[in-house]
Amino acid sequence: MGARRMAALSQRVDVFRVPCRGPGDLGAVQALVDAGELHPADIVAVMGKTEGNGCVNDFTREYASQAWCAWLAKALGISEAQAEQRVALVMSGGTEGVLSPHFTVFARREAPAASNGKRLVVGRAQTRDFAPDELGRMAQIEATAQAVRDAMADAGIADAADVHFVQVKCPLLSSAKLAAAKAPVTRDTYESMGCSRGASALGVAVALGEVAAAELSDASVCHDWSRYSKRASASAGIELEGNVVIVLGEAEGSASPYRIGHTLMRDAIDGEGVRALLASLPGTLVNLLAKAEASPDGRVRGERHTMLQDSDINSTRHARAAVGGVLASIAGHTALYVSGGAEHQGPPGGGPVAAITRIDA
Amino acid sequence: MGARRMAALSQRVDVFRVPCRGPGDLGAVQALVDAGELHPADIVAVMGKTEGNGCVNDFTREYASQAWCAWLAKALGISEAQAEQRVALVMSGGTEGVLSPHFTVFARREAPAASNGKRLVVGRAQTRDFAPDELGRMAQIEATAQAVRDAMADAGIADAADVHFVQVKCPLLSSAKLAAAKAPVTRDTYESMGCSRGASALGVAVALGEVAAAELSDASVCHDWSRYSKRASASAGIELEGNVVIVLGEAEGSASPYRIGHTLMRDAIDGEGVRALLASLPGTLVNLLAKAEASPDGRVRGERHTMLQDSDINSTRHARAAVGGVLASIAGHTALYVSGGAEHQGPPGGGPVAAITRIDA
Amino acid sequence: MGARRMAALSQRVDVFRVPCRGPGDLGAVQALVDAGELHPADIVAVMGKTEGNGCVNDFTREYASQAWCAWLAKALGISEAQAEQRVALVMSGGTEGVLSPHFTVFARREAPAASNGKRLVVGRAQTRDFAPDELGRMAQIEATAQAVRDAMADAGIADAADVHFVQVKCPLLSSAKLAAAKAPVTRDTYESMGCSRGASALGVAVALGEVAAAELSDASVCHDWSRYSKRASASAGIELEGNVVIVLGEAEGSASPYRIGHTLMRDAIDGEGVRALLASLPGTLVNLLAKAEASPDGRVRGERHTMLQDSDINSTRHARAAVGGVLASIAGHTALYVSGGAEHQGPPGGGPVAAITRIDA
Amino acid sequence: MGARRMAALSQRVDVFRVPCRGPGDLGAVQALVDAGELHPADIVAVMGKTEGNGCVNDFTREYASQAWCAWLAKALGISEAQAEQRVALVMSGGTEGVLSPHFTVFARREAPAASNGKRLVVGRAQTRDFAPDELGRMAQIEATAQAVRDAMADAGIADAADVHFVQVKCPLLSSAKLAAAKAPVTRDTYESMGCSRGASALGVAVALGEVAAAELSDASVCHDWSRYSKRASASAGIELEGNVVIVLGEAEGSASPYRIGHTLMRDAIDGEGVRALLASLPGTLVNLLAKAEASPDGRVRGERHTMLQDSDINSTRHARAAVGGVLASIAGHTALYVSGGAEHQGPPGGGPVAAITRIDA
Repeated sequence: MGARRMAALSQRVDVFRVPCRGPGDLGAVQALVDAGELHPADIVAVMGKTEGNGCVNDFTREYASQAWCAWLAKALGISEAQAEQRVALVMSGGTEGVLSPHFTVFARREAPAASNGKRLVVGRAQTRDFAPDELGRMAQIEATAQAVRDAMADAGIADAADVHFVQVKCPLLSSAKLAAAKAPVTRDTYESMGCSRGASALGVAVALGEVAAAELSDASVCHDWSRYSKRASASAGIELEGNVVIVLGEAEGSASPYRIGHTLMRDAIDGEGVRALLASLPGTLVNLLAKAEASPDGRVRGERHTMLQDSDINSTRHARAAVGGVLASIAGHTALYVSGGAEHQGPPGGGPVAAITRIDA
Repeated sequence: MGARRMAALSQRVDVFRVPCRGPGDLGAVQALVDAGELHPADIVAVMGKTEGNGCVNDFTREYASQAWCAWLAKALGISEAQAEQRVALVMSGGTEGVLSPHFTVFARREAPAASNGKRLVVGRAQTRDFAPDELGRMAQIEATAQAVRDAMADAGIADAADVHFVQVKCPLLSSAKLAAAKAPVTRDTYESMGCSRGASALGVAVALGEVAAAELSDASVCHDWSRYSKRASASAGIELEGNVVIVLGEAEGSASPYRIGHTLMRDAIDGEGVRALLASLPGTLVNLLAKAEASPDGRVRGERHTMLQDSDINSTRHARAAVGGVLASIAGHTALYVSGGAEHQGPPGGGPVAAITRIDA
Repeated sequence: MGARRMAALSQRVDVFRVPCRGPGDLGAVQALVDAGELHPADIVAVMGKTEGNGCVNDFTREYASQAWCAWLAKALGISEAQAEQRVALVMSGGTEGVLSPHFTVFARREAPAASNGKRLVVGRAQTRDFAPDELGRMAQIEATAQAVRDAMADAGIADAADVHFVQVKCPLLSSAKLAAAKAPVTRDTYESMGCSRGASALGVAVALGEVAAAELSDASVCHDWSRYSKRASASAGIELEGNVVIVLGEAEGSASPYRIGHTLMRDAIDGEGVRALLASLPGTLVNLLAKAEASPDGRVRGERHTMLQDSDINSTRHARAAVGGVLASIAGHTALYVSGGAEHQGPPGGGPVAAITRIDA
Repeated sequence: MGARRMAALSQRVDVFRVPCRGPGDLGAVQALVDAGELHPADIVAVMGKTEGNGCVNDFTREYASQAWCAWLAKALGISEAQAEQRVALVMSGGTEGVLSPHFTVFARREAPAASNGKRLVVGRAQTRDFAPDELGRMAQIEATAQAVRDAMADAGIADAADVHFVQVKCPLLSSAKLAAAKAPVTRDTYESMGCSRGASALGVAVALGEVAAAELSDASVCHDWSRYSKRASASAGIELEGNVVIVLGEAEGSASPYRIGHTLMRDAIDGEGVRALLASLPGTLVNLLAKAEASPDGRVRGERHTMLQDSDINSTRHARAAVGGVLASIAGHTALYVSGGAEHQGPPGGGPVAAITRIDA
């Protein structure tokens, strides 16, 4: 994903929420292309919900990514490896409860600057590759913070207050990396995913001024839950060496017919902020982007939940199902991006929510 | 459960929502007794949510029922078999997502008639034992309808419009019953649960005037989804020979400090009616009683859901998790009675919801 | 997959059992090619075990098939659609317990006739496309029987006694096909898989003389469990319109350095026949091909099993785990082809087992 | 459970393998009593397999224990608390694959010394209560070792070589205990179960001379997998404060019509030792007692397994299903005691197996 920098005040972003019949089905994406609404060359990021378990052995994410790479390669006349570099593919597994599998496609192209107030912009950047011993520690936090600043510049956002959602893809400690590590943050691959997500989220918090870097140390990651970002969403993937950052926000001059805003769910059943957010944004809702998790203290508003004790269903699946229900009842549709694993992404048991609306020009 | 008929205008019902630390934990119930708030002899019904899978091999329901029988037997100086006859124990398995395991205990005693408007009443009745070939057919529908009328009389309710929730416990076709059956509605035990629930719900619909008996035949059960009750909730259990019916409604003269009302979720994410219901009822919410199911057409508001294709998690678990999230976000607490398996209980994919509120006298 | 007929007495088959690190990993296959041991143009069939749940929402089968099509297309300079036609790809999901994900690759080429006794041969054929109303009925049985005879001819097998395993891929009733059907055998997609497998297995039984066609009618399928094949293995897939048949057997003149034999597991813990089979076959075991299922009467040798009542784990997963343990303890390795869903494939609760051994020339 | 010491050379043990229709069903136990074969007052231990998931939220163990306490209390005219003290109830959840739910009941009474060689004896003992900080550490190891020696004395076994199976019930760190702990071995309740089982097994190893106490330290527990017992089986339960130990072995003079022996499975598919064990023991097999686990290195005989990556099914469930298949194919029946969680109980990926046979007098 190169630094395809463009004049900040002259980008137009389009956002397409596209259904699929399975992890490998891009028929509805192709239909958008055939209809002239979407140009493959403009695609900069895809955030997908696929119908696997969202946990360790969820191959629907990999399958969907492969399908996208193959499709992009064919559409753009490039190799699959080049396609993977060109477009940030973030696949989140798990469509429990009412959630509906879909892809949210972000397309960006240069456009004459507009003058109708703040509108959606998107920016991307990436960190250097990390050494295995850096994952889940200050090195990852600091590099991620810098990448967020770079992505803000790429988006043409000067003020952190205009950033509403930061999606990070981050590496994990595979067996191979663990073999090369001297003193890794953990020797458990699954745990390393949480550490990497947590450090990435704290990096976002630092860049956005939500947490001061000086307050953090290696020991903060996945321990000091009082520090978190209200706008970060991180997911770990095995294919990466460094972090990829997507910043979604607003800027004056953007020619996009979209607005974006954000709020926080304080716990898994907190719908009030989301209601207020939707009331405050003009236009028609395109999608909500949210993180969900089972409250680590085993309670929601003082009452016991059983998500963490269920050995048949992973707690992340429970959390997505419940939060998906809450959000769908507010949004009025079910093809929502609700992702699990929310270390330092919102308060314990809660999580960030962003809303993108389309303003009919 | 004898026909402990009482003068209709002089009952007082109390409703206790009691948490538990496991299916066999009645510590909080005992605490209510020790505090003088609950008299074991007054208990007429218990509706529990237990933390099993709510499906075939969910032993938490049976375990909780056993614990209640043992506790009642000890508290009342009767046998466990007498306790089971005396109190209607309805245990619904499955506390997916945010749902919190708990018991809703209904206690009823005679009281001088009050004159402050309609208040909560409860009535009970039961049908004769059914022959195996009657289950899931008109015989069960008609007998259930009569039992609902009997329970209304027991509650002191004259007008079906004052009935807000009818909980039915109904038999299923066990292997033993199937061996004795000539032409049962199905030879599959699990399917027989749905048939028995469906016929029971249609019986409620007939008694409440929601469906005309003349419109129904054996073939309607679990086939004609356009016929349903907006106030029925049915669950099948292996220990029964006939249906047990609990009617919850309102009557003038009731001395209960509680109100009850009902509404319908048209689909799994429909929270609007519930919001309106809560706004219309005075007092503090004690509990919601609701049915949930995965929409049989595979869609929610036109978008595909994956609940019916998930071979790892039963669709009833998905549905409870999602609807539990929707309702908890409205109710503000998570110890809600959300039960699965909603044949003819509300429209396909939706379900009835009742709310009980306490009016501080 | 054309009828690439070759002189029956002059084929050489090679069989490769290849591990994989995931459903999309063909690295070990490529390594065989790079080492000159496997020629992509010779590949006629692949039987894979992939690590999904083996049930409705198992996308690992589709993902592995896609990976194979892409790999074959590249290796052979053909389209993916042509690759799918050329090679019979049979992906069976579910590696429960000790089972290890892998592919068994069958390669065939012309060779001078050998004269060292019976050796492995493979043949393929396919039926015409089926109308939706034909699936699970006599039409499918009869057409499958003819395809088995065609595949025997393709393999150069004259005597049905020399057939040791028949793998069938068969269609199912998708929503689209159901919409076009007048009186389908079932309107449930999942059930249609069992009906299609059952009719296919009965077709094999007819062709091999295990069951007389005159004894069968539409009503036999998935009802008369006393009729079955001891050598059939069937799996249903959504992408097909007709049946694809792979016959594995032996013939004089074959130049293959492999032998094949078969036996029957009478129930899920019957290892005696498999032990005897392995003792009777010279050479080193390459792989076992087996079907497994939970005994439909709920018992194994008179004792209750819980596989059919477990709402958390599908019975097919239980059965593969248990039978996989039985067979691996005999075979001494765990990368075995153990497949679920054994309607009319062996006796109720049991199943066919074939063994392929390599004779070092 | 008091130290009901008896003259060592004059005990008779009877072993009953009893099926059940559910976790709370003791009908077949009662039938044995009614038939005069089993005297409730003789029962010293029960080892049950119940049909839950065997993991955190498995309430079938607790339910079965409750049912046993209630039954014993009634049969013996004592309180349920006294019943729990009197009889060692070990309930192991999980009957995956072919495994059949059942109870193995050990009854012991005084008898004139016999003189027909070594026969089955059983002994019991318990440790003092442990402080929270002692669990999973040397204190638990040493106290367990002493309890094993005490139980050997209770059984009349002088030589550790005559001990064939040691079942330990051990505490875990509940939330309440964690609150009271200063420096517990872990602050995770689920992890504490493994630590407690591991330390208990090492205590058995020390008592039996399999590991020298001097070789062990706190750091050995759940880290140094090269140290283990070939005869230990441990399970953790929330209701305990100290360890309960049951020693099964042989002694001259025992009047029991049973023999017992043991062997080791080196990995999950190693049936050879079990075959040899059964061939070496006279009489008819009553039951196998075995531990199973997923090999922690992710491989069985060099081939990858997927048990540790499966987020839908816990690895202990996979392991029981596979090992249950292996053992049932050898034993010829499926009501076997196969238990998961084998820390320091046999080599990594393998486990101890004991066989009890009945010699018809």
